Amino acid sequence: MAEKITKRGDDYSKWYLDIVNQAGLAENSAVRGCMVIKPHGYAIWEKMQRALDRMFKDTGHVNAYFPLFIPKSYLEKEAEHVEGFAKECAVVTHHRLVAKSDGTGLMPDPASKLGDEEMLVIRPTSETIIWNTYKDWIQSYRDLPILINQWANVVRWEMRTRLFLRTAEFLWQEGHTAHATAKEAEEEAHRMLEVYRTFAEEWMAMPVLTGPKSDGQKFPGAIYTLCIEAMMQDRKALQAGTSHFLGQNFAKAFGVQFTNPQSQLEYAWATSWGVSTRLIGGLIMTHSDDQGLVLPPRLAPIHVAIVPIYRKPEEKAAVLEAAQKLAANLRGLPADPWFSYDPIQVKVDDRDQYQPGFKFTEWEVKGVPIRVELGPKDIAQNACVLARRDLPGKEAKEMGVPLDKAPERIVTLLKEMQQKLFEKAKAWRDASIHEVDSYDDFKKKIEEPGGFFLAHWDGTQATEDKIAAETKATIRCIPNQFEKKPGKCMVTGEPSPGRVVFAKAY
Amino acid sequence: MAEKITKRGDDYSKWYLDIVNQAGLAENSAVRGCMVIKPHGYAIWEKMQRALDRMFKDTGHVNAYFPLFIPKSYLEKEAEHVEGFAKECAVVTHHRLVAKSDGTGLMPDPASKLGDEEMLVIRPTSETIIWNTYKDWIQSYRDLPILINQWANVVRWEMRTRLFLRTAEFLWQEGHTAHATAKEAEEEAHRMLEVYRTFAEEWMAMPVLTGPKSDGQKFPGAIYTLCIEAMMQDRKALQAGTSHFLGQNFAKAFGVQFTNPQSQLEYAWATSWGVSTRLIGGLIMTHSDDQGLVLPPRLAPIHVAIVPIYRKPEEKAAVLEAAQKLAANLRGLPADPWFSYDPIQVKVDDRDQYQPGFKFTEWEVKGVPIRVELGPKDIAQNACVLARRDLPGKEAKEMGVPLDKAPERIVTLLKEMQQKLFEKAKAWRDASIHEVDSYDDFKKKIEEPGGFFLAHWDGTQATEDKIAAETKATIRCIPNQFEKKPGKCMVTGEPSPGRVVFAKAY
Repeated sequence: MAEKITKRGDDYSKWYLDIVNQAGLAENSAVRGCMVIKPHGYAIWEKMQRALDRMFKDTGHVNAYFPLFIPKSYLEKEAEHVEGFAKECAVVTHHRLVAKSDGTGLMPDPASKLGDEEMLVIRPTSETIIWNTYKDWIQSYRDLPILINQWANVVRWEMRTRLFLRTAEFLWQEGHTAHATAKEAEEEAHRMLEVYRTFAEEWMAMPVLTGPKSDGQKFPGAIYTLCIEAMMQDRKALQAGTSHFLGQNFAKAFGVQFTNPQSQLEYAWATSWGVSTRLIGGLIMTHSDDQGLVLPPRLAPIHVAIVPIYRKPEEKAAVLEAAQKLAANLRGLPADPWFSYDPIQVKVDDRDQYQPGFKFTEWEVKGVPIRVELGPKDIAQNACVLARRDLPGKEAKEMGVPLDKAPERIVTLLKEMQQKLFEKAKAWRDASIHEVDSYDDFKKKIEEPGGFFLAHWDGTQATEDKIAAETKATIRCIPNQFEKKPGKCMVTGEPSPGRVVFAKAY
Repeated sequence: MAEKITKRGDDYSKWYLDIVNQAGLAENSAVRGCMVIKPHGYAIWEKMQRALDRMFKDTGHVNAYFPLFIPKSYLEKEAEHVEGFAKECAVVTHHRLVAKSDGTGLMPDPASKLGDEEMLVIRPTSETIIWNTYKDWIQSYRDLPILINQWANVVRWEMRTRLFLRTAEFLWQEGHTAHATAKEAEEEAHRMLEVYRTFAEEWMAMPVLTGPKSDGQKFPGAIYTLCIEAMMQDRKALQAGTSHFLGQNFAKAFGVQFTNPQSQLEYAWATSWGVSTRLIGGLIMTHSDDQGLVLPPRLAPIHVAIVPIYRKPEEKAAVLEAAQKLAANLRGLPADPWFSYDPIQVKVDDRDQYQPGFKFTEWEVKGVPIRVELGPKDIAQNACVLARRDLPGKEAKEMGVPLDKAPERIVTLLKEMQQKLFEKAKAWRDASIHEVDSYDDFKKKIEEPGGFFLAHWDGTQATEDKIAAETKATIRCIPNQFEKKPGKCMVTGEPSPGRVVFAKAY
């Protein structure tokens, strides 16, 4: 604790890692590219899971669990899919270790080698194993739709990793649905995109653009991919969630046919959709400041840290008693869907070995939305001081808040903070969305000031590739948020049906 | 649905698989030894997780997440540990697939082969990767205790698998704690055993014996292992949870030292403890009957199935309206810790294509605790029929329950059922615990009638091995539940400090 956090303006990338480290969110493990998600980081993930899981269930989904392992032979069945994932697969080739003959340790037992047909990869995503299972579950249109979600770990062997944003192993949820008609499947893909948008904006307080990806950026094996795209404080884009319409590709690869009401055999229609621990990276980079993590209250694992202030032993008892009483009153507030029906989480920081100033800094770094200061003078007036995390210095403080009114006031402040964080992030993002019509102009502005650029594009892969090669910017999505007016591609001058969003991305 | 379930008396093992299959709990996947946990089975796991997670947090633990992969070199560091797990490790040797030169598919890319030091196994348990991490977290006694739990998947390559009871991949939680003193660590190991006992008995309604394992049965790398042992309906034992005192073994293997208050360096003390999806197997085999699954209400994903009964269209509207109203009243009951603060889960079975009798059978097979029957005659009297799952035929039914009193009555019945299921299971178990003094007698009775046998044992591995080889029975635990009186080993006649529990086990 109490190490200096690099300022965003000095080194954005180091600032991010400082926050992850000093807020106790995650660290690199001894295994290349794999992270340890530390308790405070995991607690944020639990809050995200809780809220998302409820939204999935409210839209009719149920959870299930499919194997970690995928037979190599399954991956081979959908051509685009395998093309997309083969290069980053962890491959299991043996199922036993034995002592080396020279006694220097263990080696894979040659007698346990898996044959070509048995060989396994760790799931990079589960379409293949799940659609192989659905084959046995789907015979008739009466078996449809199947609306299943899975919370799981997946592995994509990335060469360049960054905590939360890109790791070899990550945690996610993956929805896999099967439908009787293309229309129903497409509606599902759009419904889940809307769930993701709602979660990003109403829980993470992170504004997002929504829309389809260009063909060059879609999921391997999808007909099209819808996404939510957020803007980080360095004006780079973060793809925060995707929802895919898979057509009949996986049904055909795995022979999943059903009898329709007219007694004809048809292939089933599919979607898949996912968000991952990457969201935690997005959360950090949307709200945090040079003092540390800033968390939207709805996803804060601790909402309120009460710091008792005392010098003399006789002060300590009275101050701690008042602190515990306030904590109990906060925890006893009625269940509120706004908090996912969880009680408000309160920490009474009664550690004797640290001074209040040290504690203030620690809770600030960890992003606790409300700090309560409670000293002998405060309790003499039956009052306390509230400090909110999202405002600077004195502006953050409310003095003399009556203790009996404090729980209600704290809830009001938490809800206000949630709203303000969203508005602030949205204002920041909106100020960095620019229309651009000339490629020269684009090339300049993508470097400085950066941001999201609405530009016309001729729809070809060649042009998209050229822009990416020359500027490192990619098409983030064909946005739903702006009116579509035809124009001319900024690079080739060919016709364009409407502007798309270009940005550099994580 | 509506296939016949094999009777327990005819073929117990087939009965078990019929229940797992027909209640929609799980199925074998295409990957050897790995199961697909189907929605109804996974929903039971979610209920278990919810209750356990709260108990872990109430005892001061936090969740975190450590990598799926463990470097082979870590596993080698604790001699007993590697001896215990090397034979069942899935080994990752490559991180990329490439096309074979003959175009027949993919193979591990030789250029992506991991060197001896980089080679990875899928975690069979996480002591090694976690203690390697703790090395950096623990410097001073002030950093202790560390009380962390992880919810994760693990892989142990089992040759003979059975759904839930023994699978190559399974889901579990693993607690890993670090302490400054042996005493604190031992207290923790016993505390978590008590959490498991409480969960087994108060949530699963499954009575358990508790106590240490014999040295021959302890966890590889532990000083001692405590366990909860349940008896299934075929009178075989199921090890349902273990809590290990690991001493300083892992601290020494990974060099985890801290400065104590006297400024001396010491190795940290460790515990680990876990329960897994195996519990679902135990739950099934404790309560279910020849009609299907029976679930203790506190772990039932659906508490109440309301089956509307009607013939004519004008009946349908009125009956469905009453059903929905009752469902809303049930869901609106105040939050109750008994239900893990979750609302009561109610299903209104309004499927038109099935007859009520078919629906009754389906909910019975799935183990829903309360069925509500609601027909035109019932609503004419503002009443309904309640049927509880744990009683046979007419005994199960309460006729003419007033609709406005039904929610309260249902809650009462659910709580009563929970209690009755525990009592019934306990009576069954207690009737199958026998003292035995002669080895000949033991050899007969372990075959018929079977059960738990309290017998004297001389404390040697040789005797334990002999008994296992000759009878397939093992020492389940040195039970806390019975008074310890010295005696003589039933096999060798050597002195014994007290009886231990022998049984055949899953």
